[in-house]
Amino acid sequence: MSDDPRFGLARSVTLPGPLRLDGGALLSPIDLAYETYGTLNHDASNAILICHALTGDQHVASDHPVTGKQGWWTRMIGPGKPIDPERHFVICANVLGSCLGSSGPASVNPATGKPWGMTFPVITIRDMVRAQAMLLDHLGVARLLAVVGGSMGGMQALSWAATFPERTASAIVIASAARHSAQNIAFHEVGRQAIMADPKWRGGDYYADGDPPVAGLAVARMAAHITYLSEAGLTAKFGRKLQGRNVKTFGFDADFQVESYLRHQGISFVERFDANSYLYITRALDYFDLAEEHGGALANAFKASPTRFCLVSFDTDWLYPTAESRGIVHALNAAGAAASFVELSSPFGHDAFLLESPELSRVVDGFLRAGAR
Amino acid sequence: MSDDPRFGLARSVTLPGPLRLDGGALLSPIDLAYETYGTLNHDASNAILICHALTGDQHVASDHPVTGKQGWWTRMIGPGKPIDPERHFVICANVLGSCLGSSGPASVNPATGKPWGMTFPVITIRDMVRAQAMLLDHLGVARLLAVVGGSMGGMQALSWAATFPERTASAIVIASAARHSAQNIAFHEVGRQAIMADPKWRGGDYYADGDPPVAGLAVARMAAHITYLSEAGLTAKFGRKLQGRNVKTFGFDADFQVESYLRHQGISFVERFDANSYLYITRALDYFDLAEEHGGALANAFKASPTRFCLVSFDTDWLYPTAESRGIVHALNAAGAAASFVELSSPFGHDAFLLESPELSRVVDGFLRAGAR
Repeated sequence: MSDDPRFGLARSVTLPGPLRLDGGALLSPIDLAYETYGTLNHDASNAILICHALTGDQHVASDHPVTGKQGWWTRMIGPGKPIDPERHFVICANVLGSCLGSSGPASVNPATGKPWGMTFPVITIRDMVRAQAMLLDHLGVARLLAVVGGSMGGMQALSWAATFPERTASAIVIASAARHSAQNIAFHEVGRQAIMADPKWRGGDYYADGDPPVAGLAVARMAAHITYLSEAGLTAKFGRKLQGRNVKTFGFDADFQVESYLRHQGISFVERFDANSYLYITRALDYFDLAEEHGGALANAFKASPTRFCLVSFDTDWLYPTAESRGIVHALNAAGAAASFVELSSPFGHDAFLLESPELSRVVDGFLRAGAR
Repeated sequence: MSDDPRFGLARSVTLPGPLRLDGGALLSPIDLAYETYGTLNHDASNAILICHALTGDQHVASDHPVTGKQGWWTRMIGPGKPIDPERHFVICANVLGSCLGSSGPASVNPATGKPWGMTFPVITIRDMVRAQAMLLDHLGVARLLAVVGGSMGGMQALSWAATFPERTASAIVIASAARHSAQNIAFHEVGRQAIMADPKWRGGDYYADGDPPVAGLAVARMAAHITYLSEAGLTAKFGRKLQGRNVKTFGFDADFQVESYLRHQGISFVERFDANSYLYITRALDYFDLAEEHGGALANAFKASPTRFCLVSFDTDWLYPTAESRGIVHALNAAGAAASFVELSSPFGHDAFLLESPELSRVVDGFLRAGAR
C-alpha cells in the first residue's frame, strides 16, 4: 500500500471544477467519495475503474458503512479474483448525484449553506463519467487499463469509451444497454411518482427534520426490484409459498414469501439511500441514449475507437435484455472497434451480474489477461 | 326486449344470501350490479356470462357512467359481433369486491350503517363466481351456453367450469392463468403498498370526507399498467419520443411521452375506481390457485368435465404468458375435457384481448357456433 493519502479506502476529494454539465449548469466544487485497492504501478498502466449501478456505491470490495455488509462485487474484485489488487490498481467512486459522499441533492450547496434538494442540477451518465475523469486526473491516472461496470455501470463504461477513447484501453460492459427503453423509463417513472406522491417528500426539501419520504422510496425500490429478477427466478425462489404459516390468512398481511421479501427490500433500502438521489440517478438513466449524443447513430460513438470492448448479457435479464447488448456489438462492428460478446445463461435475471457466476469471472479474467499480453 | 325488470342495462339486485365465502365469513345481503343484453330464449339456452377483469365492470357494451366511454368489450359484444344480442342473452355483473354497485369495501355494512372499508371480508375468485351463480338463479338461467372472460375474467371462467360444471356448457378463457405467479403477486404487492403508504388511505377508512388515497392508487395503477403492455408495444408506441418538446428539459417534468401517458393512466383511473376495491380484488387474484383448490393437481379441477373449453393466449403477453394457458390445456387434456387452444400474435401484450383482433373474434365466433350445432 502507498502512503499517498489519495489512495486507500474511504477517501474523498473536493475538486474545484467547475464541471460543465450536459444540462448547461456549472457545478463547483465537486465532492467525490471513492476507494482504491492495490497499488498504481510505475507507469500508471494497471488502473481499472469500477462503475457502480443505480443504488451502488464506492464500497465495491469493502464493508458498507451503513449496512455492514461486504462490498457489492467481492465476487469480481479481490485476491485471486479476475480484478485483483495484487495486480491491478482498482478505483471505484460514488457517482455524481448519489448519496454516499459524492456531490448530490443531499449535499450542501455552498452558495446557500443548505442541502441542494431539487435545486441540484439534473445530471447525465456522461456527467458522472466526466467527474470520474477529473478524479483520475487527481489520482494521476492518464489512461485506464479497463473500465468495468454492470447495469448503469456498463453505461458509464460505454460513455467512457465514447467520451474519452484515448483514456480507455478497454471497456467491460455487463448486463447493460446503450439507451433506456420506453419500458425502462416507465418503471423509473413509477418509482419517481411513488416518491413524489409521499407527502414527506415536500418538494425534496426534507433534510432538516430527519423525516424523509421513506414510504414512497420503499415502494419505488419494490417496483424496481421486480425488474432485477427473472420470472423463473422468482418462481424458483418463492413460487406461491406462504410466509411462516400453513394457510392463507384472508387478510392483507404478507401471506406470501415473495410479498415479505419485497417489503424487506423496500424497508432495508431506505436506510441506506436518499430519495432525491433516487430521483436524480433514475433521471440520468432515462436520459441516457448514447446514439442520440452522436447524431443518432450508435456506431458514431465508437468511430475509430482504440478501445477493446467486452460485452456480456444474461439470457433471463429482461431489464436490459441480450438484444440491447447485441445492438451495441453491431454498432461496434460497424465502427470497426474490437468487440467480443457473450450471452451467459443464468436463472437470476438482471441481478445475475452481482451473483456468483464462474462463467462471468472467466470471461472478465480472460479478457483482461488477453489485453495485458 | 323483455318487460321483465330483471333484464336490461344498469340493473342491480340485492340478494338475501347468505353467501359463505372461502375465507369463512357469511356475507349477507349481496348487492350485485349487472347488465343484460338481448333476450333470454324460451328454454334459457342462449345465456352467455361475460366476466370482467381487475378494474373492469358490468358496462361491457354500454357507456361507462363515470367516464362516458363506450363499453370495454364492444369489439366482442354487439350486433354482428361474435357475441351478439340478436342471438345471445348476455349477462355481465360487477364482481363482488368491486365498486360499481356490487358489494365491496365501499358498500355500507348493514350492521353498522357505515362503509365496510377494510372490515369487508377478503374474497376469492370462487366467491365472485358463487355470487354470479346466485345472480343467474335470480335471472332464471340454470345453465350457461358460455362463460367468457379475459385476464381475471378468464380465471372466473375457469372457476365456473370447476365449481359449477353442470351449469357451464362452455368456457372461453383468454389471456389468463390458473394461478398467480410469484411475479404476478409481486407486482400486486407493490400496488397495495403504494396505496397503503398513502397517508390518505387511513387504514381504508377514507369514505367520509371525499379525500381518498388517489396518489397511492395512481402509482399502483401505473405499475400495473406497465405489465399490461409489451416492451415492443411500448417501444413502437412511445420509444424515447419527447412530449410536446424538442429537447430534454433537464428537470422532472414528464419529458418523455411514455411518462406523460403513464401519469395520465394513473390520474384517470382514480376517478373511476376505489382504492380499497383495488386492494381486495388484487388479493383475490393473488390467492387464486385453481390446482390448490383441488388437491394440488389442476387436472382434478376438471375431472369428467362436461364443459367445452377454448383457451386463447397472446404471444407478447408477459403478465399471463402462453405457458400459463398451455399448462391449463395440459390439465384439461389430462382430465379428458374437450379443449381447444390457440396462441395469437399481437404486438400489444396482455391488453391485446381488449383491442381490435380479427383473429380473436374469429376464434370466439367459431367456437360458439360449433357449440350451437
